[in-house]
Amino acid sequence: MSNRVAVIGSGNVAEALSLAISANDRYDLVQLWARNVDRGRLIASLAGCVYENDPQKLAAADIYIISVSDRAIREISEQFDFGDAIVVHTSGSCGADELSSVIPRQGVLYPLQTFTAGRTVDFQEIPFFVEAADDESFRAIFSLASALSGSVYRSDPELRRRLHVAAVFVCNFVNHMYVAGEQLMQENGLDYGLLKPLIAETIRKMLTSPSPRPLQTGPAVREDYPTIEKHMALLDNNPRLRDLYRMITESIISDKKNNS
Amino acid sequence: MSNRVAVIGSGNVAEALSLAISANDRYDLVQLWARNVDRGRLIASLAGCVYENDPQKLAAADIYIISVSDRAIREISEQFDFGDAIVVHTSGSCGADELSSVIPRQGVLYPLQTFTAGRTVDFQEIPFFVEAADDESFRAIFSLASALSGSVYRSDPELRRRLHVAAVFVCNFVNHMYVAGEQLMQENGLDYGLLKPLIAETIRKMLTSPSPRPLQTGPAVREDYPTIEKHMALLDNNPRLRDLYRMITESIISDKKNNS
Repeated sequence: MSNRVAVIGSGNVAEALSLAISANDRYDLVQLWARNVDRGRLIASLAGCVYENDPQKLAAADIYIISVSDRAIREISEQFDFGDAIVVHTSGSCGADELSSVIPRQGVLYPLQTFTAGRTVDFQEIPFFVEAADDESFRAIFSLASALSGSVYRSDPELRRRLHVAAVFVCNFVNHMYVAGEQLMQENGLDYGLLKPLIAETIRKMLTSPSPRPLQTGPAVREDYPTIEKHMALLDNNPRLRDLYRMITESIISDKKNNS
Repeated sequence: MSNRVAVIGSGNVAEALSLAISANDRYDLVQLWARNVDRGRLIASLAGCVYENDPQKLAAADIYIISVSDRAIREISEQFDFGDAIVVHTSGSCGADELSSVIPRQGVLYPLQTFTAGRTVDFQEIPFFVEAADDESFRAIFSLASALSGSVYRSDPELRRRLHVAAVFVCNFVNHMYVAGEQLMQENGLDYGLLKPLIAETIRKMLTSPSPRPLQTGPAVREDYPTIEKHMALLDNNPRLRDLYRMITESIISDKKNNS
């Protein structure tokens, strides 16, 4: 069994994976390797494993998880001799070929979740997407993912990138809508927190529904043009938010026409 | 004390307010008046009050809450003789003058929340915004709102409209991001439910943070142009979502530059 795992990196994904693997009975986290000493030491101490930042002292492992920024994957993967161990990255956007081409057994372990330093999430429900160049590596990575989560799928670079785009809409773009809401509240001397009951209820409804489309409410889906006009006029002093308002409103109306 | 309340309308706001008022010790819900017989009877039976749809048989009350679509407020308010009772509407967008001008005591009772038929929400935490043409009416409406919620504020038509715009961003536009995510998943034969752990965690983070701006993640805020380019290319077959992606990405980058 390939049960020795080393994590390379000190970002939020590296932290979350390190903690989850160290808490797992079937795998041993043998090392946290990271250039960033402060973050590296912190994560290693939280996960109860050895910290290292000397490229010459990478621990022997069966699976190496390179969890660094997309731009650094290539360089980091070229820095080590992994022998015939399995090496994966965790990026939503990079091809499997982003890893050094001299690594014989390589793959991808992509968790569809947002991670934050210091926050614990329930790994059992995180969807993991697995890729590998050969079947044996695939089975080993799939087994690791299955030890962490009840939701593991075979993927490919194209599919993973599409998942990443969907994630951008429902996570990053949603957050930007909150930033816009906060700005509008602040411009009126109002506390952003007043929006939170509305935000929380919007999500509770959505999470208990099989599809968000029937839940669409508001002036756009009602094609309530007088209200839309009033809102646009109010945003006249903020062309960026006005253009955003207009474009999303148009998209809601167009989506409704295409799906009714 | 002005404690007799009648609700006019059978939408989701009318339903939620009827249930909350009927459950309140300090107020009596004396009637649910609505043109829609099925919805009207249902709400009245849930709230344990009398249902009526005959314009001649509006019950005597101290406060009438007209909770109908924006377009119907004027016509409905002109249909009755309210005497010297207080009459409010619950719209986020309409002016107080949307009510018939012959009503001497008029105002607005705007709950900043999204309501769904059949769903109960905790009224105590819903922010209510109150307006009235005269002080005595204002106090009476404010008292009613305070009996229902711990979060009641004085408003004005301009402020209320701005609140409504903020609500559109954090509720309606957020839901449209979920619709986009669902579409991208479906196009790849993937279950929308796979996004739910990510969506739930995004919100949990935001609800426990004072501001959403520091939580912004993703390719846009990192100005990760290679990833943005890949995502745009993937959306080439869907110009609507591609344009949405580009515009929100630009807005995130611009917001970052203006606030860092």
